[in-house]
Amino acid sequence: MAVPRVLVYGGKGALGSAVVNMFKTKNWWVCSVDLFECEAADCNVTLTPTDSWTSQAEEVSSKVDGALGDSKVDAIVCVAGGWAGGNAASNEYVKNCDLMWKQSVWTSVLASQIAAKHLNSGGFLLLTGAKAGLEGTPGMIGYGMAKAAVHQLVASLSQPKSGMPENSSVVAILPVTLNTPANRKAMPNADFAQWTPLDELASRLVSWSAGEDRPPPSTNLLQVVTVDGVTTYTPVN
Amino acid sequence: MAVPRVLVYGGKGALGSAVVNMFKTKNWWVCSVDLFECEAADCNVTLTPTDSWTSQAEEVSSKVDGALGDSKVDAIVCVAGGWAGGNAASNEYVKNCDLMWKQSVWTSVLASQIAAKHLNSGGFLLLTGAKAGLEGTPGMIGYGMAKAAVHQLVASLSQPKSGMPENSSVVAILPVTLNTPANRKAMPNADFAQWTPLDELASRLVSWSAGEDRPPPSTNLLQVVTVDGVTTYTPVN
Repeated sequence: MAVPRVLVYGGKGALGSAVVNMFKTKNWWVCSVDLFECEAADCNVTLTPTDSWTSQAEEVSSKVDGALGDSKVDAIVCVAGGWAGGNAASNEYVKNCDLMWKQSVWTSVLASQIAAKHLNSGGFLLLTGAKAGLEGTPGMIGYGMAKAAVHQLVASLSQPKSGMPENSSVVAILPVTLNTPANRKAMPNADFAQWTPLDELASRLVSWSAGEDRPPPSTNLLQVVTVDGVTTYTPVN
Repeated sequence: MAVPRVLVYGGKGALGSAVVNMFKTKNWWVCSVDLFECEAADCNVTLTPTDSWTSQAEEVSSKVDGALGDSKVDAIVCVAGGWAGGNAASNEYVKNCDLMWKQSVWTSVLASQIAAKHLNSGGFLLLTGAKAGLEGTPGMIGYGMAKAAVHQLVASLSQPKSGMPENSSVVAILPVTLNTPANRKAMPNADFAQWTPLDELASRLVSWSAGEDRPPPSTNLLQVVTVDGVTTYTPVN
């Protein structure tokens, strides 16, 4: 059997690193796309920060073409993202809306652009939403807006004539709080048993990429909720 | 009674011009914010095109401060927007996502930033979504994403601690197709009786701004559907 191949968008982040490592333990070939190099990956596409989405699109496209050549990948997992707060009266309101857009929506759209060209038919595209984005988020307006946009993007991509390869699956995970070093530092007194462990989530993403227990075609948004150390994946109605 | 005051964001567009004219026939003082001057307005804030959202935010903030001074407005009506198609395989995919974001989300967020500072308590903020954005939009991905983001923004703004003035209302209209010159030119054989007339919509926006028949606080998204010349406004569940 050929070695399966995955492109991880955001492979140097906290969740991204866990995802890359989990793919490597299952013997996948891994290409990481990030602003920073991910040593554990077999191949790195390192991007230059820019304020122009179209410039970033051109850079990603050209570098991924170079990295993958004519061969395709079996899965694309986009776990890039970030968090910033702020309501409409905040001095950082627009700055943080802009940052959230770049971290969540630029990356998700660029991952889908790569998928349209380089994902195998029957392949798997994973994007990262947030459970909070299903409703209003008055204290973190930019974050909720960007995640709601990702949710709607997944709805678009999963329909016919979206430009996605034949029989491919598109799913977004909607986590609450991930158990990352940054979150532990920011909220040291929280109950970490209510946060989703990175390896648990990474393991699930690798299974879905391999075609195991993949959510049915009608399921595009999966809420990821951890209670007392137990993580469940529940479709949004 | 003092002359009521409104800021129209996008006052030079097709719907914007109709809205400005309708406010003037009802004797409102109108400030238009747009890339182009709107002659019918009492006051114009003319913006410089830029690729930086934060720069545009600083320009808007400074120029609106200059135009309004310490006095507030009773309503802010954001009818800026646009349309572009394209799926994930389109050569214009990212370019059009970027354009839609700037035309719909930049403007909506900047209108809400102005509202946080300059809208009277009990005032009215109107943003412009789209019925199509309630579901997937595979043939116009950037458009649907931007409109879904506006819908979630309205959900955020209408909750406590969003930074909006006390007792203010935030509503988004979700039209289907407006009867504009550009749409008539692009789709000359369509049945215009199924498109929403600009004056009908403008008249409704002026009424809501004046506090007449304003949607109840629990209603934030209103679908605007025209069938055989009759336009209805139906809340999204």
